[in-house]
Amino acid sequence: MNRNDPHRVIKAPTGTTLQARSWLTEAPLRMLMNNLDPDVAEHPASLVVYGGIGRAARDWDCYDRIVEVLKRLGDDETLLIQSGKPVGVFPTHADAPRVLLANSNLVPHWANWEHFNELDRKGLMMYGQMTAGSWIYIGSQGIVQGTYETFAAVARQHFDGQARGRWILTGGLGGMGGAQPLAATMAGFCMLAVEVDESRIDFRLRTGYVDKKATDLDEALAMIEAAKADGEAISVGLLGNAAEVFPALVERGITPDVVTDQTSAHDPLNGYLPMGWSMAQAAEQRELDPAAVVKAAKQSMAVQVQAMLDLQAAGAATLDYGNNIRQMALEEGVTNAFDFPGFVPAYIRPLFCEGIGPFRWVALSGDPEDIYRTDAKVKELIPDNPQLHNWLDMARERIHFQGLPARICWVGLEDRARLGLAFNEMVRNGELKAPVVIGRDHLDSGSVASPNRETEAMQDGSDAVSDWPLLNALLNTAGGATWVSLHHGGGVGMGFSQHSGVVIVCDGSEAAAKRVGRVLHNDPATGVMRHADAGYDIALDCARRNHLDLPMMTGKGAEA
Amino acid sequence: MNRNDPHRVIKAPTGTTLQARSWLTEAPLRMLMNNLDPDVAEHPASLVVYGGIGRAARDWDCYDRIVEVLKRLGDDETLLIQSGKPVGVFPTHADAPRVLLANSNLVPHWANWEHFNELDRKGLMMYGQMTAGSWIYIGSQGIVQGTYETFAAVARQHFDGQARGRWILTGGLGGMGGAQPLAATMAGFCMLAVEVDESRIDFRLRTGYVDKKATDLDEALAMIEAAKADGEAISVGLLGNAAEVFPALVERGITPDVVTDQTSAHDPLNGYLPMGWSMAQAAEQRELDPAAVVKAAKQSMAVQVQAMLDLQAAGAATLDYGNNIRQMALEEGVTNAFDFPGFVPAYIRPLFCEGIGPFRWVALSGDPEDIYRTDAKVKELIPDNPQLHNWLDMARERIHFQGLPARICWVGLEDRARLGLAFNEMVRNGELKAPVVIGRDHLDSGSVASPNRETEAMQDGSDAVSDWPLLNALLNTAGGATWVSLHHGGGVGMGFSQHSGVVIVCDGSEAAAKRVGRVLHNDPATGVMRHADAGYDIALDCARRNHLDLPMMTGKGAEA
Ligand SMILES: NC(=O)c1ccc[n+]([C@@H]2O[C@H](COP(=O)([O-])OP(=O)(O)OC[C@H]3O[C@@H](n4cnc5c(N)ncnc54)[C@H](O)[C@@H]3O)[C@@H](O)[C@H]2O)c1
Ligand SMILES: NC(=O)c1ccc[n+]([C@@H]2O[C@H](COP(=O)([O-])OP(=O)(O)OC[C@H]3O[C@@H](n4cnc5c(N)ncnc54)[C@H](O)[C@@H]3O)[C@@H](O)[C@H]2O)c1
Repeated sequence: MNRNDPHRVIKAPTGTTLQARSWLTEAPLRMLMNNLDPDVAEHPASLVVYGGIGRAARDWDCYDRIVEVLKRLGDDETLLIQSGKPVGVFPTHADAPRVLLANSNLVPHWANWEHFNELDRKGLMMYGQMTAGSWIYIGSQGIVQGTYETFAAVARQHFDGQARGRWILTGGLGGMGGAQPLAATMAGFCMLAVEVDESRIDFRLRTGYVDKKATDLDEALAMIEAAKADGEAISVGLLGNAAEVFPALVERGITPDVVTDQTSAHDPLNGYLPMGWSMAQAAEQRELDPAAVVKAAKQSMAVQVQAMLDLQAAGAATLDYGNNIRQMALEEGVTNAFDFPGFVPAYIRPLFCEGIGPFRWVALSGDPEDIYRTDAKVKELIPDNPQLHNWLDMARERIHFQGLPARICWVGLEDRARLGLAFNEMVRNGELKAPVVIGRDHLDSGSVASPNRETEAMQDGSDAVSDWPLLNALLNTAGGATWVSLHHGGGVGMGFSQHSGVVIVCDGSEAAAKRVGRVLHNDPATGVMRHADAGYDIALDCARRNHLDLPMMTGKGAEA
Repeated sequence: MNRNDPHRVIKAPTGTTLQARSWLTEAPLRMLMNNLDPDVAEHPASLVVYGGIGRAARDWDCYDRIVEVLKRLGDDETLLIQSGKPVGVFPTHADAPRVLLANSNLVPHWANWEHFNELDRKGLMMYGQMTAGSWIYIGSQGIVQGTYETFAAVARQHFDGQARGRWILTGGLGGMGGAQPLAATMAGFCMLAVEVDESRIDFRLRTGYVDKKATDLDEALAMIEAAKADGEAISVGLLGNAAEVFPALVERGITPDVVTDQTSAHDPLNGYLPMGWSMAQAAEQRELDPAAVVKAAKQSMAVQVQAMLDLQAAGAATLDYGNNIRQMALEEGVTNAFDFPGFVPAYIRPLFCEGIGPFRWVALSGDPEDIYRTDAKVKELIPDNPQLHNWLDMARERIHFQGLPARICWVGLEDRARLGLAFNEMVRNGELKAPVVIGRDHLDSGSVASPNRETEAMQDGSDAVSDWPLLNALLNTAGGATWVSLHHGGGVGMGFSQHSGVVIVCDGSEAAAKRVGRVLHNDPATGVMRHADAGYDIALDCARRNHLDLPMMTGKGAEA
């Protein structure tokens, strides 16, 4: 298995010349390549996009073969990808997806990291995380708005909307975590982000996601204090281990206003550096004695979570940011690890009830102008949402594009299909230089079952029911999305989640308009349905307002 | 939740008058009803079709609403079923499935009977088993040929093909297990089947699946001895508990030629009567103290498995028949429980390598003549397979139809699409009185990951990889099957399997022919692909012979 090749440098083609036989196959080709662009991926030489070991293809042979197949694939054929390997091409039809992917799925009794890692080492599997294996990762921007929305909600809920003069402590500046400092300052907070890997801090400095670097805690705290005094919102990347820095603050009696974490705690083998270890040592031990790495990492996480609980007790608003660190600490004996809430039930669920989540699109032309035109179209179509307009302005000003130009913006059932149809029309009439793809994270309203994160503490107790994301994937396939994926273990690790992804191409055709209209309606509608079924009034109202046909609730005859 | 209504007696409509708007929605309507026909289902009043508590709908309200929706559903709409509940109707298109189902799926860390039972009691879930929740159960016939093929393979492998004068010991005469005595005698064996529920024995006597009833062991053994002496193949249903009768044989030093079991061991709460308990006592304790029932049942299974190991040591060919009883015994301390093999690796896998599995079809007309005509068509199209012809003759002679007339017959990649297209043509030209539906069990070549059963001991160690059944479901959805389902826990219980079902309607139209040609090719082809990927030469040869496009193995350029 050839999994590491430092000589490979992948860039998606841009412009309007096709490598494949149509835009419906050119699109997955460019998006796969874009996922592995060195400006986008965390470790492109080993096909790792983000999220610990979230890969875009199983190995370089599989990558090459996927590219070959996409170039020859017909518009009545469908390519199957099994954990990053192209396993079959089958006859389908024009309105069927061109690619169907299943990544990292294991029968539950065997769905743990030990078994997965064994299969992964044997070359039989790959970890797909969420958008890595489903080819719709767009760099750290992907997470910025979600993080910004969350921090803004924290400010509203705890500080009367006033973030100024407040600061957030967090860990991890990786693919997703790297969005935290930018989102924090956009929302008006200062941030201290602890990161063990200096190259990650430098990468965030270079791309404008973090403002300053510090190499010791005193220096970092001084920077934060100075900024607070000036009423400025700045972010500092501190080189250090979160399991050491968090308890050090407890010891000193220094309490941040908000505490969270985005190390890759969901993957204790590959995603979290144990305290006292060097990066080189961890890399070596991962090969020599993986069980010892896991043990040490989980013990350090327990220390970090204990510090988070202590800071919470001292008055900090503390939240789990979806990396399953509470579960890991619980397994190491921190019995009250779940005393601080996950961010979804605390801040995001009301949005999910209306199908609102991380909607995103990418300009296949490679031209930033195409994104700016769509930005303007979004403002035109959603004129009465100042927070959204503000986001679009800040995003344009402060977010550097990585790879193909892309935009993310949290909108829901009432807007997604309208926007998609407008973008398709813009492709048709030449306002955009080339087609756009529209997709979303798997962290969305109807696409995931993850009891320690997206479906934590559901009103009816249905947290672990994964029928919902499976139905979402089947319906998006039936509706004619361009590619659809089903993953396991994203975000929170093996055993803890099942989720689905979807991407659809706006190539400007009438046929695409039909598919876009269906898929971008149905996809968020399944989220509204899932939350209405669980008893959330906001979701039920949204379903009624949008005339969803939910037979036991709002369908024809349901009120009879 | 209204789950038990003894007044409800469901029969599928027959003839050519539609209740729904087209045959594509009439078909799932009739098949749902057929699943609950008292001649088909094990406990229709509580919507239980077979396999412990395998249901067709969550409760009677859900059932009624499903029926209403199917009657009004348009040919560009799709109904979603979540664990037996109709949760949404969404716009799709003519070539998309009319129904998509996800039953009993749980996020792996929570995928166990305790959590499932809690959700089930709250009315949030339903156990779908395999064909119960996916509306293509056809009574005990469904399993007869599979069991017959297995017993014939046992005879070939252990007794030079001579079953005469040999006998099989088994347990369980339920929905599936009830097929054992008929299959055994068809294959030339005598059989002693131990069953705790007298009504189940009487049901099998009435429908011609078992020849005789006995109420004590001596009587039963005498019947078997007499038949063996006369060179006859007879079957005896013995009223008793397998956990008591199996050890009694060990004690007496009586060794059957073959030993197996088909109690519902996969569901220790509802599917297995602990030794020494009455049925009434178990029913009561299931409500009062479910944990105690589970414990007692698993302890009895351990006793039974120990007896099976002892009989194996004494020379009996012993096999697990896919009910996960070895796992249960293992969990109770029988450390060598897996010393006897599962039936799939031992006898069935070579068939799966060619996509061969339990193909089945049902005459929606309700007229047995339609099945006899298709029987003749199968013989005509597959002229050179005497075993298959023999099966069809015996089936016609000895198998009573239950509910809508149906036929099962194990065929693979090379035949399924040909047969389906021929049937569709017979509908078109009026040779058949009404459309037929074609489906299969989830126990099939490409549709299941189940490490203690269908994917036990795969050559490459990929037993637990469930990407494959998920891809199968997505591809069948993309291909335009009429309904597609994704289930968890079928056969072997919660945590131990993931699998998908598919049904397609032959309504005689040109559009149906296109869908049938695709789906009945792709579906078995995914099985050949899965086995070729695991390294089985038979599968690789079959893939090459049939020009499957498997990019890393046989696709264009794969040999380069
Ligand atoms: N809340 C959300 O919306 C959301 C979204 C996506 C991902 N996540 C979760 O956030 C986590 C991070 O995701 P990512 O894509 O950034 O992962 P990543 O693997 O790219 O980055 C993790 C970072 O943490 C650093 N790190 C590891 N151990 C550390 C330690 N002890 N102290 C300080 N830093 C340490 C690593 O060097 C790395 O840079 C994952 O668990 C992911 O599932 C949350
Ligand atoms: N090998 C295969 O092809 C295959 C196919 C389908 C099902 N199965 C498995 O076979 C098992 C049986 O399926 P089913 O549909 O017949 O289930 P079922 O629940 O309809 O029948 C089980 C029967 O076992 C009887 N029973 C329970 N405890 C007993 C005991 N201690 N002693 C004797 N009899 C006892 C019950 O009374 C019942 O009649 C299931 O675990 C199922 O998953 C195997």
